[in-house]
Amino acid sequence: MKYTFYITQDGSVERESDTLVFIGKDFKKHLPVLNVEDIIISGKVSLSSWALDYLSKIGIIVHILRPNGTYMSSIVPISKNEIGMNTVKQAMAYSSRDRLDIAAEMVEGIRHNIIRNLRYYNEDGAISGIIERIRSYAIKKDNINSILGVEGNIWSDYYSSFPKIFKGYPSFKRQFHPPPDSLNAMISFGNAMLYSSVLTKIIASGLNPSISFLHEPSDRSFSLALDIADVFKPVIVERLVAYLVNNRIMKDGDFEERDGGVYLNDTGRNKFVSAYRDRMESSLKVGNGYATYETIIGEECYKLLHHVSEGKRYRSFRMWD
Amino acid sequence: MKYTFYITQDGSVERESDTLVFIGKDFKKHLPVLNVEDIIISGKVSLSSWALDYLSKIGIIVHILRPNGTYMSSIVPISKNEIGMNTVKQAMAYSSRDRLDIAAEMVEGIRHNIIRNLRYYNEDGAISGIIERIRSYAIKKDNINSILGVEGNIWSDYYSSFPKIFKGYPSFKRQFHPPPDSLNAMISFGNAMLYSSVLTKIIASGLNPSISFLHEPSDRSFSLALDIADVFKPVIVERLVAYLVNNRIMKDGDFEERDGGVYLNDTGRNKFVSAYRDRMESSLKVGNGYATYETIIGEECYKLLHHVSEGKRYRSFRMWD
Repeated sequence: MKYTFYITQDGSVERESDTLVFIGKDFKKHLPVLNVEDIIISGKVSLSSWALDYLSKIGIIVHILRPNGTYMSSIVPISKNEIGMNTVKQAMAYSSRDRLDIAAEMVEGIRHNIIRNLRYYNEDGAISGIIERIRSYAIKKDNINSILGVEGNIWSDYYSSFPKIFKGYPSFKRQFHPPPDSLNAMISFGNAMLYSSVLTKIIASGLNPSISFLHEPSDRSFSLALDIADVFKPVIVERLVAYLVNNRIMKDGDFEERDGGVYLNDTGRNKFVSAYRDRMESSLKVGNGYATYETIIGEECYKLLHHVSEGKRYRSFRMWD
Repeated sequence: MKYTFYITQDGSVERESDTLVFIGKDFKKHLPVLNVEDIIISGKVSLSSWALDYLSKIGIIVHILRPNGTYMSSIVPISKNEIGMNTVKQAMAYSSRDRLDIAAEMVEGIRHNIIRNLRYYNEDGAISGIIERIRSYAIKKDNINSILGVEGNIWSDYYSSFPKIFKGYPSFKRQFHPPPDSLNAMISFGNAMLYSSVLTKIIASGLNPSISFLHEPSDRSFSLALDIADVFKPVIVERLVAYLVNNRIMKDGDFEERDGGVYLNDTGRNKFVSAYRDRMESSLKVGNGYATYETIIGEECYKLLHHVSEGKRYRSFRMWD
């Protein structure tokens, strides 16, 4: 099983003959290249073209986040490019009835996983009403606007429960560019990390990251990564943030204010990424066995691929309960 | 008109507040960022993530070639991603009769431009026979194998004429990995440069670089860049190499032998890229006016886009004669 190498500190990635090293301010760390699937960089890092050449040869994908914690871009080895024929099949599925089936199935996954989260934090029954409302929305499966409308309502209800989930945040409004408070900052950063992780699995499966089913594929984003990340966000990002907040692991000193917004600083980013890695590599119950989130996200991509290429119906990930 | 910034020397690309500089061994050069569309790197160069952040923000694409002169990978700003809906239309065209029409039209462009080249070097009539043979192949437009067969024959005949075109090469066989002689080395390097230039124009147009019409889109390469580059190779790469060879601009000292092959060394790469840039930026007659190869390649992409999205028949580039 290959894993993700996370770089949160400033430094440079250099090639030393047939291996790679990360050189930080006062340390040097070898990258176990044969066991690494991708690298997610959230620090200020230099990459030499000789290092990129080696990364490319052994097929490691590099994702780079911006200083403000949003996704910037990816360096994808040519050997990991999308497979044109899969793209053709995916485009066919998008243009047919399959699009509605897949989009509706994704919304059902989002609904299930959000409810799963809400029940976890509903010890005193304070969010039972929200759970009931989220459960009640009926999807008309032959109409993309109905599917998108239900999805919008579900997220909106979910956000309205956040003051009950995250201790110390008596009110909450989801806001980006810039995040106005530390909770929004953590959710944005977590989403960028998850987006990167999902993108790696999409690329590894040979799917085209720009042809999506729930989000419109009309702009220039990797909208399939947005589709799949949404199914997992509640159980990965929000659960992780709630853990960090409610156990007082994140402190005021882990954030900084700049450019009118609130951002994780170096120590905050370090703590967050360390907890994110633990969550991604932890095992959870699926069917009769256990698997890590990393594996499950990879399987989600293959389920989509099998739907578009073999007509095997996609069923979205539902957190076990 | 934006242009390409070429880096052939070793050094690093750094950000200095709101501008970028290339720092070489003993000099520093500002990148005129607002006038640059893409950067093609063939030296050994470090890129800081802060520089990449800035490149990404202003939408500059970076292509990196390997030490052996082949294409390695590209760093594409998220704002330049393919547009999913175009990909869907392109996939539809690939899956329909349009694929055959476009592929056949590309082969006619290749045939025309190769003959144009051969006539240029046929002062003594020594390659009239080859020209006639290339002209004679008939394409069955309803059969992809016929189209590909004719294309293969045309290239093969074309290569057989190389000893008459390139002075000092009494025999020639096209070989890659590694290139066995300086002529193959220059053609391979020129093809990698052209592939990068074409990729930029494909990306700028919003087309998907992996869905091709002449090449099969079944592997993980940017096969549409291969399709389009083939139409231009004769009049850009071979003409450039013939100019460098026949005017004795390239010397033995511009190459080095290593790993069982022949490659351009630092000075050779410098000379080659400088001549390549001149060729790409030079104007040629098209219709009633003049345009640079850079512009013409961009237009070729838009012609394809208009075919797949508006049904406006694609007609491949034919060198004026």
